[in-house]
Amino acid sequence: MYSVTLEKLLKAKGINIGDKVSVKVKDRKFEGMLMPQTDSGDGDKLVIKMDSGYNVGLSVANLERVETVKKVSVTPAIPKFDPSKPAISIISTGGTITSKVNYTTGGVTTVEKPEEILQTIPELAKVANIRSIDRPFAKMSEDMNYADWIETASAVAKKLNSDDRGVIITHGTDSLHFTAAALSFFLRNLNKPVVLVGSQRSIDRGSSDAAMNLVCGAVMASANIAEVGICMHGSVSDDYCIFSRGTKVRKMHTSRRDAFKPINESALAKVWPDGGIEITNGNHKVRNDSMNVELDLAFEPKVAILKAYPGSDPSIIDHLVYRGYRGFIIEASGLGHVPTNGPRSWIPTIKKHVKDGIFIGCAAQTIFGRINPDVYTNLRVLYREAGAVPLEDMLAETAYVKLGWVLGHTKDMAEARKMMLTNYAGEMTQRSKEDGYLE
Amino acid sequence: MYSVTLEKLLKAKGINIGDKVSVKVKDRKFEGMLMPQTDSGDGDKLVIKMDSGYNVGLSVANLERVETVKKVSVTPAIPKFDPSKPAISIISTGGTITSKVNYTTGGVTTVEKPEEILQTIPELAKVANIRSIDRPFAKMSEDMNYADWIETASAVAKKLNSDDRGVIITHGTDSLHFTAAALSFFLRNLNKPVVLVGSQRSIDRGSSDAAMNLVCGAVMASANIAEVGICMHGSVSDDYCIFSRGTKVRKMHTSRRDAFKPINESALAKVWPDGGIEITNGNHKVRNDSMNVELDLAFEPKVAILKAYPGSDPSIIDHLVYRGYRGFIIEASGLGHVPTNGPRSWIPTIKKHVKDGIFIGCAAQTIFGRINPDVYTNLRVLYREAGAVPLEDMLAETAYVKLGWVLGHTKDMAEARKMMLTNYAGEMTQRSKEDGYLE
Repeated sequence: MYSVTLEKLLKAKGINIGDKVSVKVKDRKFEGMLMPQTDSGDGDKLVIKMDSGYNVGLSVANLERVETVKKVSVTPAIPKFDPSKPAISIISTGGTITSKVNYTTGGVTTVEKPEEILQTIPELAKVANIRSIDRPFAKMSEDMNYADWIETASAVAKKLNSDDRGVIITHGTDSLHFTAAALSFFLRNLNKPVVLVGSQRSIDRGSSDAAMNLVCGAVMASANIAEVGICMHGSVSDDYCIFSRGTKVRKMHTSRRDAFKPINESALAKVWPDGGIEITNGNHKVRNDSMNVELDLAFEPKVAILKAYPGSDPSIIDHLVYRGYRGFIIEASGLGHVPTNGPRSWIPTIKKHVKDGIFIGCAAQTIFGRINPDVYTNLRVLYREAGAVPLEDMLAETAYVKLGWVLGHTKDMAEARKMMLTNYAGEMTQRSKEDGYLE
Repeated sequence: MYSVTLEKLLKAKGINIGDKVSVKVKDRKFEGMLMPQTDSGDGDKLVIKMDSGYNVGLSVANLERVETVKKVSVTPAIPKFDPSKPAISIISTGGTITSKVNYTTGGVTTVEKPEEILQTIPELAKVANIRSIDRPFAKMSEDMNYADWIETASAVAKKLNSDDRGVIITHGTDSLHFTAAALSFFLRNLNKPVVLVGSQRSIDRGSSDAAMNLVCGAVMASANIAEVGICMHGSVSDDYCIFSRGTKVRKMHTSRRDAFKPINESALAKVWPDGGIEITNGNHKVRNDSMNVELDLAFEPKVAILKAYPGSDPSIIDHLVYRGYRGFIIEASGLGHVPTNGPRSWIPTIKKHVKDGIFIGCAAQTIFGRINPDVYTNLRVLYREAGAVPLEDMLAETAYVKLGWVLGHTKDMAEARKMMLTNYAGEMTQRSKEDGYLE
């Protein structure tokens, strides 16, 4: 919101947000669209979106002149329904990607009707008909948990079992890969694409990735593939997106548009906003529209991720077991180590709890690569003697979600071990020569 | 060790480990050096190192014939001392890199004398004179902790303040980047290069990276640079190594030879085993041999790394504070989030402990990128209201080591905050356009 001073000035000049304006500040002149100030922004700075797409903030203290260059219509036309395009649905869970600037209040509001999304991102109509936008809840993704995953999965299943070609889920990016993993396990006998889409920059910024991610997401949602995945920028340019398997993807950068990277396997596809798709990983299921997806939502939330590192304190496991926790994923170092000898050894703690029926599995703290339970003596102590389970090349985040799902199905530890080492949703890959890094 | 059957067979034929042998197995013939079997290997398999450098394991059950092709001298000559080469010292802390196969027992033992290292890796003599190899202790790096960091730093300082050109530390790879960070803070007014070297494959394997890492390490140790860094393979080929700053590097793969990657900045240098160096990051200090390094070893070990994720339990903080912990590094999601709203919010817990004089800082769980405390309302709640400290683009592992060092110096939280946000060893970089990923 703008400060009272600025609001008064704009009102006096008859300037509305969305108008093209000319602003003189000391010896420089700026021309562009007047943007609303964000809630967190400095209310004493006018925000102008330049033709280059970049926003500039101009302090009221330096303002010499503000004039309207052009009054702008703020309601773009809604594209017509085109029955030749595939029908897809959007499940909106929050995040900036389905938000739009309210040009009256200057605030950011969540889109509720399909027509509004089409107004904001008219390019969508070129690749798909958005049949519906459902909003089971609206949360920042850092505030979501397993109950939200269950609610999302239920909303998605309903659409997958209609005659929609596929479903898009819009979602904040912080925990997008957790939700993607959860849907991968919750949705059994998957029949169609389930495409999770977020944006790293809010939609009212010139550099926003929202529109292209959503358009590419719509392309993927009507593709011949039956996988849960994340569809986001494949590079920092607005050229193409990548669709990565929901169990093999991780947010790897705080701010870059290509923050989501496939881990330990190639992305499933490259997608262009003009409708082009290149399959980059043949290991995927194809769509089967005549099949119905099944929900399998049993979940034990008393599981946790822990990290083993020099000086790390294994008493955290005692504390959480006392609080009723039933399973742990340890981010182990190197090929799968925890401190093994010396006063801070994790071995006695792990041994004791495994014996008492607590599941303890290890995933790679290095993120890339695979746990190997045999190379060194310390590894054999952990995996052969203490009873921890080496979780192959599964991501720790995926293993955490999977463990909640597995312990929702069984209390038997032999069965839990077997299920954790069974591939349900491409969460483990075969040992390969490739052994790649970030693409 | 070989099984009794195989030991008897070899003895009967007069074949010793190290000899060149010819082995017939079903319809195939193999020729190469007879290797010892490792402790974890199958004792009923003969291990032959082929001329290609690869080892093959041949089961005794399929063995048709074994013959000596050539008896081999097992003691290579020791290169002569060359006063024209720079003198460097090695501090050996364990790990396979300064181990060598004992051709009599078949076991792996730690090298104790400089001459033995030169026997194993004669290429070293081409780039440096190894003046001494000290071994303060010998541990697998997953078993090391802050006391080992202090001991290592003390051993290093003694050499840096002699007329050595530089120091190499050989070390297991699992916690190599923790030790590198610790030395970066412990060694003040650094005068010469401190080069940490590990190996991903043990030295008795054809594909070992030990020799090249050590030779490149020796090149770096005599270079015109005064930084603590890790020197390991820059690619999967045996072409060059990279030297990455000790506070900006992380093990990013369980098994690849180029597992250590610089994070949020370029590597300091590329290094070739023939002595070539290319500086790839101008932001480094140059050597000053006339200066003395100072040890600053104050350290508070009651600090921990925690991870915030959907469903994560902030009561771990209560538990550890009860056990006397004084500071925490949270691996926060996205731009620096913890669960903020809802029943699993971390905010009340953080607020309470910060008020009670506990330090809580946040680093990026995405690994790449930078914490930004202002973009979203939830971020302002965490950093402006609850009092967590946003730790810029510092790695969580580095921040953890630094926090132990900072709290070793002050109990005042305002001072701790100030120190955590002061750049002591290149642990934070300026906001840059580059904003890169893995190189």
